[in-house]
Order: sequence, then structure tokens, then C-alpha cells
Amino acid sequence: MYICCLMQTKPFLHTILSPGLLNLYEVSNSIVVIIDVFRATSTMATALYNGAEKIIPVAQVEDCINIGKKLNAITAGERDGKIIEGLQHGNSPAEYPREFINGKTLVLTTTNGTKLLHMALEKGASEVLTGSFPNLSAVCNHLLKTNRNVILGCSAWKNRFNLEDTLFAGAVINRIKENFTIHCDSSLMAEDMYNLHKNDMYSFIRRTTHWHRLSAFGLEKDLEYCVTPDVANILPVYEAGALIAASGN
Amino acid sequence: MYICCLMQTKPFLHTILSPGLLNLYEVSNSIVVIIDVFRATSTMATALYNGAEKIIPVAQVEDCINIGKKLNAITAGERDGKIIEGLQHGNSPAEYPREFINGKTLVLTTTNGTKLLHMALEKGASEVLTGSFPNLSAVCNHLLKTNRNVILGCSAWKNRFNLEDTLFAGAVINRIKENFTIHCDSSLMAEDMYNLHKNDMYSFIRRTTHWHRLSAFGLEKDLEYCVTPDVANILPVYEAGALIAASGN
Repeated sequence: MYICCLMQTKPFLHTILSPGLLNLYEVSNSIVVIIDVFRATSTMATALYNGAEKIIPVAQVEDCINIGKKLNAITAGERDGKIIEGLQHGNSPAEYPREFINGKTLVLTTTNGTKLLHMALEKGASEVLTGSFPNLSAVCNHLLKTNRNVILGCSAWKNRFNLEDTLFAGAVINRIKENFTIHCDSSLMAEDMYNLHKNDMYSFIRRTTHWHRLSAFGLEKDLEYCVTPDVANILPVYEAGALIAASGN
Repeated sequence: MYICCLMQTKPFLHTILSPGLLNLYEVSNSIVVIIDVFRATSTMATALYNGAEKIIPVAQVEDCINIGKKLNAITAGERDGKIIEGLQHGNSPAEYPREFINGKTLVLTTTNGTKLLHMALEKGASEVLTGSFPNLSAVCNHLLKTNRNVILGCSAWKNRFNLEDTLFAGAVINRIKENFTIHCDSSLMAEDMYNLHKNDMYSFIRRTTHWHRLSAFGLEKDLEYCVTPDVANILPVYEAGALIAASGN
């Protein structure tokens, strides 16, 4: 009688601190979680949670306007924290309550998040989804269930490291690390930073450079919402050119 | 009677987490501190502290061999933690006691540190020096005295973020931050990480990926030395193609 032992190795998890470092990692066999806490991926989760049919993330403003016209969709986006001229809406989750966004299509362009999403697609990610505190549990549950290699991709700020995306990566790692192989200093740091600040998140984010940038536009409430877990707990996945709520949500 | 008020602004300090992100920063009007804790900049400080006349950092192994022959100098270097074939010595600070290195010239090539040093020079840094825990105080005192913009440049590992360089950046920031303008999430994170681990440094470094890589070669003592402050407290500055001990050391 033979007993067959199948050695099971845990899938890898890496954290990428800037889109400028994405090329150092093997993207093509990984699920890539796009993280842009302030505010693109928080807004995406919120819009889908509130019933948006789909979100088309585009890199260029011109594409946003053209696709919006063609699909009779809502156009939205920001550069440097402000609504772009020629678009209808900005990048605040508060702009997308159910009574407004339910059943509609949103075409969205943002400074950092949509850029990283397109980079991950170009590099052949096996699956692309978006993560933010408002949909923290949905992301973690999916990564645990799927059991594949994961790249947590911080969108950063024009390629510069930022704290809020790193904290979210740390929150994910904190929840799912037992199921993954993690040999990655970025991930160790991210979890340390999350543990250090998970109980003072609202005050800590006031120290970040992005807070100073965005609070100048009166967005304090937005930013606090964006670090609140599970208030829009849905899983946005990229399929056929758009982010949609994964089935089962 | 007129009172003349001169508004004095503090110089900027930025932390760069990987050579791959150096191009995002204004290098040309800054002092750049090259940080490669495991082990290039720790070795450089140690060799100069023990009387080396100068250290010529070179990017290519072939250059290392050729310059070594021409100058009758000691050739040394590592790739991936091991001594390179054709060179005489490795990248361990323990290889350079006073009785061996005093009065000699060292030609050194390493995986990450010498690469970042040359990048900073190419980008026109106003001054390049090297930092590591063994010469922490010398670096801090110089930056305080000079009072110019500073870039703390982490050499990382083949452009991937590493913890030990970040901890050193955090140690510097912790000591000199009152004298600088710091609007940089990398610096906030580095100081947080340093404060979190300054009292458990020897155990913390055992969690890093680089520890696992190098301890496989039996280098534990080396690595502990490399996170010990002020045991080779000298200031290596780059002048005319070589690192020398700054006058006043």
C-alpha cells in the first residue's frame, strides 16, 4: 500500500511600494491588488457597493470624455486632488451614493490608481482587483479563498512611497499572512506600520503628506471614510475592460 | 529705525527607499548619503576608520581588477553576498582591521551600494558621503553642521526595499529632524520603524530577507556589527574619484 504525500507550498505574497518598482516582480502568475486608499480604490468600492453597474478606469482624460459620451456614462476624475475640467465628477466616495450611482456606468481617471491598474494589466496579471479599507474583508476573503500568488500594489503618489496605501497592505497581511509565504521586507514593514497605527488611524493619517495635500481642499471627512474598514464591503474585479462587483457580492 | 528680519527656512530632507526611485528627487542641490548597511557602507566606514588611505568604489568587476593592478591596491567585492572570483577580498568589515588596511587603497565593488553612489554622482549630487550604523554620529554631526538639503539614499537589494537601510535612515532622522523640513512619507515611516525596533535591533534584523540571504554564509557576527552604532565613527566623503575620511575625523 502506498501513501501519496503531496507537498503543499503556500503561495507567495509580495508588497510593492510604488508603481516604479512593479517591474521587479513576477506579475504574470499573480493576483494583483491595486491599492489607492486616498481615494481611487475607496471610491471604486463605494460606487460598486452602491450599485454602479461597472467602472471603466482610464489613464487619459481625453479617453474618459470620449468613452463617457459613447456610453452615456458618468465621467469622473482628478489630478492632484481636484476635479478635472471637462469631467462631471471628482474622485470622492461621497459623490457616489446609491440614489445617484445605482445602475450607472462610471468612467474614472485618477492620478495614481488607474495608472498602476493599467500597468498590472499590461504585465499580464492573472487577475486584477482593487483594495481599500472600505472593502478590506472582501479582499482578504477572496485572497484566502483563491489561494494564489498575490501582489499588493501600492499606487503611491507619482511613484513616491505613501503611508496610507502601505497601511492597507499591512492590514491585509495582518489578516491573511498564515496562508502565504512572505519573504519580503516591504510586507514586514507594512504589517509593522499597520500594527503600530491600527488604533490611532484617524490621527496618524493627519501626519501623511497626502493628508496635507488633500485636506487643503476640505476633504478631511473623505479621508477618514477612506480608512474605515468594511463600509463598502464588495470585491471589484477587472473583467473585459471594466471593474465590476464580483459575483457572490 | 528698521529691523531687518531674515526668514530662515530649514533645508529639506528626503528618504529614498530604492535606487529605482532616485529619479523622482532633486539630487543636484543635495547632500546624498549612500546607505548600504549590509554591508558596503559599514565596510567602507570600518576600512577608513582603521586607516585606509582611500576607497575607490567601482561598479564593474573588470574595473576593480584593472584599477587594483594599476594602483597596486587591494581589490575587493561581492555579488549576492559572496567574494567575486578574481578579487582578493570580500565585503566584510571584519576583513579590514588596522593591521591589514592602514595606509592602503581599497578598490571595492558591491551589489547595491556602489551602484547607488555612482547614480548619485551622475545626477550631480552636491556632495556624496556614506552612512551606516558604525558611523551614525559622524554622519548626523556633518548634516547638522552643513545645514543643506539632504537625501538619505537606501541602496536596497537589487532595487527592492530593504529594512536595514530604512532603519539607518530612521536613526538619522530621529537625531536631526528638528533641523530639517521633512514632508516625506518615506522619512515618517523610516523613523517609526527605527523607534519601533531600536531596542531590539539584533533580534529584529533576523526577520529581514537580507539576514536570511547572508546568514547562510555564516555572517551573523558581521550583521550584528553592521547595526552597532559608532564603532567606526568616521565620515567617508567622495572626492576626486574616491571615498576618503573627511578632514577633522
